[in-house]
Amino acid sequence: MAEKTHYPHRVDPQWVDFTMRASIAALTNAVLSVAGRDAQIKGFGTDTLNKENFSWVLLRMAVEFDRRPEQYTDFTITTWVSDYGRMMSTRNFTVQDSEGREFGRVVTQWCMIDLTSRRPIDLTTPTIAENYGKYLVECPSPTEAPKRLGAIEPQTKVTRNVVYSDIDFNRHVNTLRYLEMMLDRLPIESFVEDRPLRLDVNFQHECRYGQELEIGHEHREDCDLFEIVSNGTAAVRARLEWR
Amino acid sequence: MAEKTHYPHRVDPQWVDFTMRASIAALTNAVLSVAGRDAQIKGFGTDTLNKENFSWVLLRMAVEFDRRPEQYTDFTITTWVSDYGRMMSTRNFTVQDSEGREFGRVVTQWCMIDLTSRRPIDLTTPTIAENYGKYLVECPSPTEAPKRLGAIEPQTKVTRNVVYSDIDFNRHVNTLRYLEMMLDRLPIESFVEDRPLRLDVNFQHECRYGQELEIGHEHREDCDLFEIVSNGTAAVRARLEWR
Repeated sequence: MAEKTHYPHRVDPQWVDFTMRASIAALTNAVLSVAGRDAQIKGFGTDTLNKENFSWVLLRMAVEFDRRPEQYTDFTITTWVSDYGRMMSTRNFTVQDSEGREFGRVVTQWCMIDLTSRRPIDLTTPTIAENYGKYLVECPSPTEAPKRLGAIEPQTKVTRNVVYSDIDFNRHVNTLRYLEMMLDRLPIESFVEDRPLRLDVNFQHECRYGQELEIGHEHREDCDLFEIVSNGTAAVRARLEWR
Repeated sequence: MAEKTHYPHRVDPQWVDFTMRASIAALTNAVLSVAGRDAQIKGFGTDTLNKENFSWVLLRMAVEFDRRPEQYTDFTITTWVSDYGRMMSTRNFTVQDSEGREFGRVVTQWCMIDLTSRRPIDLTTPTIAENYGKYLVECPSPTEAPKRLGAIEPQTKVTRNVVYSDIDFNRHVNTLRYLEMMLDRLPIESFVEDRPLRLDVNFQHECRYGQELEIGHEHREDCDLFEIVSNGTAAVRARLEWR
């Protein structure tokens, strides 16, 4: 059994919004970058997988932040893989301030795919499980797993095309941009107060360069719901709950 | 007289485009972050200035990259202030790979403003010059100063509103986003080959949350010209030359 791994961070000026605190999208992006870095260091990162024509795909995530740290604040992201089955692996994160107080919890679910067939790889295949299993940490997820989200009834919709700066090395829209597209639909006053929140996101289809995206938003009394649609199919769904 | 200061960097996965090399916008953003950090460390950063109700404003920049480094590549940004007059200060940068070979040069021109009047402060005022002058480095700019750019004759135009994720702590559009808005107008094939380039940018007016921006692009044989217009006024102009 392995141990949790810790990555020191600092809130860079380009991460902050007009409140001088890190944006939800920037904090989430920092967490997902740690996923990539930790996997790379342990030998099952995208760079290694790509040699076998495999890659990781993020399916769902749940993000909880009790507060958003201010510019130049030091914090630590702690990560561990708690379990994996045939189809899916769970990577967890907690986020601590410089005095060790936890202010964030993230649970992410990933599958490994074959880049040619775009089909999932069985993670219990011995050659994979052998390398991967030794990094499992015997500690449960720090909060409840990501919710599965249904269709929404949008009260507002905007459209935009996928452009060069939206895409990653696969020419798919990157996760940071999906979050920005959705959170940009909220009234700007939503971010003035530093409120605890939980964000659940489901990634259902990849959006590609040049596609037209429709971003829908439904405000409910207890939460905000978002849906990004491309080619008539829901690509990303999210649910934001202020706590 | 002071010495140049060096800041180690690494190409983070979120900086790369579909070619797996850092985008022009991300590299430029890294350079500008160093400006903020270096000024902060030396006691004339935005955090200190804001206490006196002053701030730095970027007027013009010239950016040259001979190549764009790949994901996870280590590099160093070196910076120094070469001179200042009443109205303007010049901060320079060179960018080196891990073997010390220079592959980038940046010249930026800044003024200091009073945040209430929005008028420039005289940098030769003794209380300012005293703190600032001791960090001057006797070394000229590594390439020619930023060009002053005139109006363009756009062949294409797109419009978009300024949204939450576009803005900085002043509720103005941040520099990274201006660069992305302009470079997104180019055909994506422009970025396939790793070509040396020079980018000149003039910042003429600030764009604010909720404003509608018109982004114009004019392709000429030897360069691409861009202009961002808000409220009928040119806010940002740029000239990109592939070398």
